[in-house]
Amino acid sequence: MTPPGTIITLTTDYGLADGYVGAIKGVILSICAEARIVDVAHDLPPQNIAHAALVLEAMAPFYPPGTVHLAVVDPGVGTSRRRIAALTETAYFVGPDNGIFGLVFRHDPPQRIYAIENTSYLLPGAATTFDGRDVFAPAAAYLAGGLDPAELGPEITDPVALAWPENRRTRQGITGVVICADRFGNLLTSVRREDWPPERPPFIVELGDQRIPGPAEAFYDDNIGGTADFCKAIFGSSGYLELARPGGSAAALLSAGPGQLVTVRWRNR
Amino acid sequence: MTPPGTIITLTTDYGLADGYVGAIKGVILSICAEARIVDVAHDLPPQNIAHAALVLEAMAPFYPPGTVHLAVVDPGVGTSRRRIAALTETAYFVGPDNGIFGLVFRHDPPQRIYAIENTSYLLPGAATTFDGRDVFAPAAAYLAGGLDPAELGPEITDPVALAWPENRRTRQGITGVVICADRFGNLLTSVRREDWPPERPPFIVELGDQRIPGPAEAFYDDNIGGTADFCKAIFGSSGYLELARPGGSAAALLSAGPGQLVTVRWRNR
Amino acid sequence: MTPPGTIITLTTDYGLADGYVGAIKGVILSICAEARIVDVAHDLPPQNIAHAALVLEAMAPFYPPGTVHLAVVDPGVGTSRRRIAALTETAYFVGPDNGIFGLVFRHDPPQRIYAIENTSYLLPGAATTFDGRDVFAPAAAYLAGGLDPAELGPEITDPVALAWPENRRTRQGITGVVICADRFGNLLTSVRREDWPPERPPFIVELGDQRIPGPAEAFYDDNIGGTADFCKAIFGSSGYLELARPGGSAAALLSAGPGQLVTVRWRNR
Repeated sequence: MTPPGTIITLTTDYGLADGYVGAIKGVILSICAEARIVDVAHDLPPQNIAHAALVLEAMAPFYPPGTVHLAVVDPGVGTSRRRIAALTETAYFVGPDNGIFGLVFRHDPPQRIYAIENTSYLLPGAATTFDGRDVFAPAAAYLAGGLDPAELGPEITDPVALAWPENRRTRQGITGVVICADRFGNLLTSVRREDWPPERPPFIVELGDQRIPGPAEAFYDDNIGGTADFCKAIFGSSGYLELARPGGSAAALLSAGPGQLVTVRWRNR
Repeated sequence: MTPPGTIITLTTDYGLADGYVGAIKGVILSICAEARIVDVAHDLPPQNIAHAALVLEAMAPFYPPGTVHLAVVDPGVGTSRRRIAALTETAYFVGPDNGIFGLVFRHDPPQRIYAIENTSYLLPGAATTFDGRDVFAPAAAYLAGGLDPAELGPEITDPVALAWPENRRTRQGITGVVICADRFGNLLTSVRREDWPPERPPFIVELGDQRIPGPAEAFYDDNIGGTADFCKAIFGSSGYLELARPGGSAAALLSAGPGQLVTVRWRNR
Repeated sequence: MTPPGTIITLTTDYGLADGYVGAIKGVILSICAEARIVDVAHDLPPQNIAHAALVLEAMAPFYPPGTVHLAVVDPGVGTSRRRIAALTETAYFVGPDNGIFGLVFRHDPPQRIYAIENTSYLLPGAATTFDGRDVFAPAAAYLAGGLDPAELGPEITDPVALAWPENRRTRQGITGVVICADRFGNLLTSVRREDWPPERPPFIVELGDQRIPGPAEAFYDDNIGGTADFCKAIFGSSGYLELARPGGSAAALLSAGPGQLVTVRWRNR
């Protein structure tokens, strides 16, 4: 178990137009004066747990050991869903028990997970609608201040799994779905670099009746042709297969979005 | 009077697509190297003082004593409206004299308010269009560095009041208005928990010809029925009565927005 | 050459809905634990280098000497475009060699520019699509930690120039273009305060068949008339001539946007 550092990252869907993020930061700084708060993302699509899971997976591995990651995308706030604090070999994670840490935990499995229940570490007079401020912010701040996570509540061993699409594999290829589009209109799919056969064949991605060639080496790789104008498939910076359009939006050009099926067909087989 | 800390919070409508926020932070760090800048909100609805007042009220109480809160939603920039620095029992507030601190001051009244006029503490060569950079950022930074607020300019005793709707009370209920929608589509009204009679009756909120039951205990409180599909009224995390729709947007479902009348009728009377 | 400080500013078009910004910050903090990261802007219009150049010009001059400015608006990522680290008399700049620093360098010329090529200072296992994380973040962090910039790679003397509109001058006036609109709908043009003749004549700005009087002293300057309802021209906080509408959006009222011609005619000549 890595001792905690003083870095606390924030990943939320609260936006920067309301007072939610500000309240959370105030609670943290009141409990742990030396905390170094790092804004990761606050404009996550509201209530979208899968998107948040991807963001956490994309950034958590790059932080110093002992970082405390606070994440709140929490459609179930106020229900009986648990609030958890987990520790892995390298970091601490605090947030709702709804699968939000599911992708991170694939690479960095939890060693212990605790349900946050000890009222000594909740904000007094807590509301039922803002666990970010009343439960998660204090828990993260106390952890950064050196609190033993076991103090927060009972250990649990059955965290909620992330709802995540299963890809279907055949000898000829693999079928997955579009998970989300990023700000540039790159479409991120559930197919990962690990799914690419060892002999590294080129492939075609079928999206509806559109065909996108891959893998490109870079967004502007010109050594690859294709029918879907300018679009190409590329393994992106987090290892997911993305459909991208250099200098434009693949999401707009392909009229595609989350949930759509993509079939990858290996060539030369 | 609490001695100043080194935390300076920023609450603005400048957005994160232009250089305004960056310039303000540079000015602060150039004057007070040890300042700890905390982003509260930069995507406030442009020029909307009431929304900014709500954000300040929602977050300021959670900060350590001595925090300096810099807030700029300033439609009157460049006019003769005053620029103020106020100190309360627990904190410092710097911004335009347009009522932006009106809700915060209800809970934490100002002990002294000064008009920022001393040119020694303004940025040299100030523009007329960017007091955030030229006036408020230096004032906040000097305060965080320990400057006596009285140095900034003359004391004033007649700060501009916040334009805020008055609720109308009857024995049967209370009529207020929708103030704003948050990022999730929750509609925040001018009715507050303090307006709820001591015997805590259940109630119905009338919005146009729609009827929303309350109070819910949580967004997913199932012990409450109602005709407006899935919508319920709940006292939110800052004490305002909100109309909320679990997992969706009440603003969209009810086709409602700022300024609309809401009538709360106590039941069992 | 100013010794580096520990402030690293971030100016990107990555948005705050994905994991990009969070990954960059993690890389920086892992390399330079004492770095003080300052968010300048993350919601820049995607791939718009000119807009980013304006933001850098608007904010960089206000930072303490030794600040490291990391900027990533990088449509050419993955191509052979160079990655650069530049030092000026007062600051360090790290980003793609695409002209993004072109406006800043007009006021604060580079003393040395290095192509970032030394793989010792890149993230191991770099992707081709995310130089912000893999190249620029480490370079900025090592610089803030005291690395001699010459260690990053070979010196270059031919940085790519910013694509920027040329104004046309006549005795009667000057013709430029609208560069962008800010969040408030103020239209910023390529005409600068330095272009204003020494005798400071009043002028009329022609935009299509609309005529906007200037210069106003402030957004609410009432001593200036005009035909385009409420719109006036004003030299803004960064020295650019702006078309503004007090309390509203000039961009909306004038139906104008980037690229549109503006002709400024000096009066009384």
